[in-house]
Amino acid sequence: MGATFREKLSEAGRRNQSLLCVGLDPDPAMLKGTPVADFVKEIVEATQDLVCAYKPNLAFFEALGIGGMQTMLEALTRVPAHIPVIADAKRGDIGNTDRFYAKALFDVYDFDAATVSPYLGYDSIEPFLEYEEKGVFLLCRTSNPGADDFQGLRLADGRPLYEEVAARANEWNTRGNLGLVVGATWPEELARVREICPSLPLLVLGVGSQGAALDDALRAGLDAEGGGVIVSTSRQVLYASDRDDYAEAARRAARELRDEINRKRDAQLALS
Amino acid sequence: MGATFREKLSEAGRRNQSLLCVGLDPDPAMLKGTPVADFVKEIVEATQDLVCAYKPNLAFFEALGIGGMQTMLEALTRVPAHIPVIADAKRGDIGNTDRFYAKALFDVYDFDAATVSPYLGYDSIEPFLEYEEKGVFLLCRTSNPGADDFQGLRLADGRPLYEEVAARANEWNTRGNLGLVVGATWPEELARVREICPSLPLLVLGVGSQGAALDDALRAGLDAEGGGVIVSTSRQVLYASDRDDYAEAARRAARELRDEINRKRDAQLALS
Repeated sequence: MGATFREKLSEAGRRNQSLLCVGLDPDPAMLKGTPVADFVKEIVEATQDLVCAYKPNLAFFEALGIGGMQTMLEALTRVPAHIPVIADAKRGDIGNTDRFYAKALFDVYDFDAATVSPYLGYDSIEPFLEYEEKGVFLLCRTSNPGADDFQGLRLADGRPLYEEVAARANEWNTRGNLGLVVGATWPEELARVREICPSLPLLVLGVGSQGAALDDALRAGLDAEGGGVIVSTSRQVLYASDRDDYAEAARRAARELRDEINRKRDAQLALS
Repeated sequence: MGATFREKLSEAGRRNQSLLCVGLDPDPAMLKGTPVADFVKEIVEATQDLVCAYKPNLAFFEALGIGGMQTMLEALTRVPAHIPVIADAKRGDIGNTDRFYAKALFDVYDFDAATVSPYLGYDSIEPFLEYEEKGVFLLCRTSNPGADDFQGLRLADGRPLYEEVAARANEWNTRGNLGLVVGATWPEELARVREICPSLPLLVLGVGSQGAALDDALRAGLDAEGGGVIVSTSRQVLYASDRDDYAEAARRAARELRDEINRKRDAQLALS
């Protein structure tokens, strides 16, 4: 068996001095004719010494047509073996069915980690957790405008729903392979999640084109050692240029963001 | 443009005198060597005059490997054009990404309807609803053991979370194409959902091998006209026999269940 997700994440982060994850969400309308697999390969080649992980969102590949997942596999061939790949799939079904989603993502496609949705409860998450060497990121407080519709609802004891999701994640993390998805757009909520889950890795989405302040998100999410956070961005890197220099522009954008994250982290560690 | 989901559902239900949907969840371990596509084709051929819809669960096909979705398309070629197909996909992502899931399910695979997950809120559901001719079934109160972990949580006003999902579904159903997924395992909750949403179609899961009482579920879910319910079963039909006569056995099981549903419905209409 190869390295576990946590080992790969830690090793890639150390080697590339990076908490940055690049989301691979290729929208054909933004590519101006470049084939999707070629585009993703170029992005990966331009950024592979700058990231701690890649995060392809399956929706973008499924929408390409019946051969979409083949295109995804082709696109991911350029990811170096030491960099973990997180399937942003947001799956969640009843336990008996969920075993098949876990099998698809972890056995068929051999992803190192996956995002899952909490609404169906523990038996919809457990089949993923049973893959002890893989990482599982449970949606907790997402970055989108509609997140508040349900995640922000107050429970009888006054806590919002997402805090209960965070608390249950702590309980369910018996194998040490569970993390949470949180939106950088809500730094106060992110801080609450970190308080509830001092040691769970947080996959922080919505930095960049979704407009969140990186500084607040890091202050809220970093653990005591200045880690425990994966900062994911997609459009800010993928579409840094709308001309032929998109790969170079992606590299520049990724390097700037990686360095900015490191500077802010170091400043915060110095203060604490 | 062809018929809408609601038109197809109504027409198939009328023609086959059926509220029964057969879930197409082929588990290779149960098939004893029959290729998945052949198995599903035989099940469809054996039951196509007995159902109002089919519901393939994508997990089972994705787990087959890179060609899994091709196998699904091949398997579904035997579904007559007048019977609607509901993609049980339980998708849900932020709006910008969800557009791609909707495109995959409705444009690429041309499903008539799909199941979606509520946790990310309205902007994760709207891209599906925008396909006005398609059906969208939002997870509300599912049939699995873990459903209570979050769906049953009491909100500040005393209502459980799933009731808020049902209430919001009513608001969001501006195009008349939204329905709810409810588990037959919880007849009281099903009755509450029907009370909150008098006119939304309910996709009732967990009848049969998940052990729910059909009578209670129908009493709770049927609308005033004895409709508005799609009763879905998978294993009870697919695996009615573990020998070579599985197609005949599936037909017998589907016919018995369809007839039992109709008898119970008629009895309840006579009482009301």
